[in-house]
Amino acid sequence: MASPLIGRHKSEIDTPALIIDLDAMERNIRRMADYFADRPAKLRPHTKTHKCPIVAHKQIAAGARGITCAKLGEAEVMASSGIKDILIANQIIGKEKIARLAALARHADVIVAVDDPANARDLSDAARVFGSEIGVVVEVDVGMGRCGTRTTGQTVSLARLLDSLEGLRFRGLMGYEGHCVFIQDRKDQVEKCHLANSMLVEAAEDVRRAGIEVEIVSGGGTGTYDITGSYPGVTEVEAGSYVFMDTRYLGVIGGFEPALTVLATVISRPGKDVVITDAGMKTVTQEFGLPALKGVQGAELVKLSEEHGQIQLTGEAANLKPGDKVEFIPSHGCTTINLHDAYFAIRGDRLEAVWEIAARGKIR
Amino acid sequence: MASPLIGRHKSEIDTPALIIDLDAMERNIRRMADYFADRPAKLRPHTKTHKCPIVAHKQIAAGARGITCAKLGEAEVMASSGIKDILIANQIIGKEKIARLAALARHADVIVAVDDPANARDLSDAARVFGSEIGVVVEVDVGMGRCGTRTTGQTVSLARLLDSLEGLRFRGLMGYEGHCVFIQDRKDQVEKCHLANSMLVEAAEDVRRAGIEVEIVSGGGTGTYDITGSYPGVTEVEAGSYVFMDTRYLGVIGGFEPALTVLATVISRPGKDVVITDAGMKTVTQEFGLPALKGVQGAELVKLSEEHGQIQLTGEAANLKPGDKVEFIPSHGCTTINLHDAYFAIRGDRLEAVWEIAARGKIR
Repeated sequence: MASPLIGRHKSEIDTPALIIDLDAMERNIRRMADYFADRPAKLRPHTKTHKCPIVAHKQIAAGARGITCAKLGEAEVMASSGIKDILIANQIIGKEKIARLAALARHADVIVAVDDPANARDLSDAARVFGSEIGVVVEVDVGMGRCGTRTTGQTVSLARLLDSLEGLRFRGLMGYEGHCVFIQDRKDQVEKCHLANSMLVEAAEDVRRAGIEVEIVSGGGTGTYDITGSYPGVTEVEAGSYVFMDTRYLGVIGGFEPALTVLATVISRPGKDVVITDAGMKTVTQEFGLPALKGVQGAELVKLSEEHGQIQLTGEAANLKPGDKVEFIPSHGCTTINLHDAYFAIRGDRLEAVWEIAARGKIR
Repeated sequence: MASPLIGRHKSEIDTPALIIDLDAMERNIRRMADYFADRPAKLRPHTKTHKCPIVAHKQIAAGARGITCAKLGEAEVMASSGIKDILIANQIIGKEKIARLAALARHADVIVAVDDPANARDLSDAARVFGSEIGVVVEVDVGMGRCGTRTTGQTVSLARLLDSLEGLRFRGLMGYEGHCVFIQDRKDQVEKCHLANSMLVEAAEDVRRAGIEVEIVSGGGTGTYDITGSYPGVTEVEAGSYVFMDTRYLGVIGGFEPALTVLATVISRPGKDVVITDAGMKTVTQEFGLPALKGVQGAELVKLSEEHGQIQLTGEAANLKPGDKVEFIPSHGCTTINLHDAYFAIRGDRLEAVWEIAARGKIR
């Protein structure tokens, strides 16, 4: 977006502001692309994290095979930016949304997750109305206990149905090992993740044995990219958070760096050992813990209320006064980004771009 | 906003959708207005809850003396809708925001909280540049431990400074007894709240003794509206959440009813005892606990992930299947509303209006 601030120093950006460190983000994109460069599995980045077409295009330019979205509304935004290969890793239910999906399928190669035969028939009906073809994958529950088929019988019979229905193009299977993402002990994580991977890959074999071609076997995320990404038979990994990282992911995987912060201003110094900032719950989320204060010794964020953050002080930070700026690293990037309308993209200390978070709030 | 769905049945609204029960909301607005109708203290509703000009206008039409905002960006939205009397219950810090505030003060009677002498001077400088007059109140910390002056000396000397500076109009004091809002034991709550009220009212007396007129003594919220609203010397109460209520406030105050829900669709029925909905953390917040499922026996929301809600089933709810709709009452209305672009306003079972949440995301 046009901004009179382009070229100015970071300290001149009004707050609260969501900041991208472009050099760090570009290194993260490069590192993940490098990992998949010479592997059978490819990267299909999950754009629910950044919700921003220009970032998705950078991931594709670095080698991603397409993108993943969580919601139809996100897929519409991404398709509008010219992206063609889009997996909606979710069930699309209801007449209105299915019509939108069938319509979108005329303009992009959309693939959607299915775990219910009635939904399969609804998708087929809509595709026939629009004269489009909707790509479909069976979602398999690989142990997370959320959506997806839970038996081989369900998986194979749903695959057969999807393969037979007019207007649908059966592409393969999808399963997310979300229960393995934040396991701290690496050996335990690998073991549980391999078990989940094997459930998915064996389900794909079952479908193939039924005479149905399986092209896509999709799973994984940032927390398991290298485990799932190297598991034989997995064809793509849906990692999202790696692009910016957050304190929760920084605690479980190495090799990537924090590229997203919230810039805030001290608005009050009511006491000797406390300052209050202008960033509260409506600016940065806390379901995975409080954000980390960056680069200030002897200061700790101890509480968020709706519009305020309370920082406890000791040491050098004791000089903080109203007007001073501080930076937080979110504990959960995906939901924090969802609170903001724009990124302020910084290179070094200069504002290089303001990017609309075009898919923010696209919950339908 | 124009919508082809106006007049349709609630069940035809695509999800997730933020729903207002208009009859319930109007009763809440009326009840709070009635409480203040014959009292010395008046109501200045906090619009950080609903972030929607049309709701603010309904509150004013019912008798509110003006409105409260948390952020300058919210005040700009409300002023654009023609509202004149606006208290920004927060410090406005930094050159860019102070210029915007001084400019806005040409178009509305804006009052802002101040707790720092340097900030007072910055406000005065900007008002002189714009030829405007910025209303100011001293924010007093009445025991919450957030922003505000903490001694009588600070309060009186800041009031003197504000009263003397060109471009500023000293209006009085503000203090929020946020630490009293969710006290369950009523006797304990009244005691602690009266202590906070007395700190504020006595500070106002101190300022008056210094020869400065104090017109506004502002405090309170939904959780303390009847305690603070009847305390002698308090001139206005900044209640916000009463308009919609949420499960947290329903647990502490009576007389108001839930008027806000999130409508969601079951998107998967992966097992006998579980369904998954399309409403997760990006649709409804959980920092005050999980939302409550409305009107379904034998079903309980047990987990939110980013894009999904997991409902555990027993009893009659065991019939829920993909495509069925369910409704949640948020545990925290203010932050849930902040995730949405629009309200779907229902009367009975029919969609009567779609209202833009125009101040959503106005964090600056």
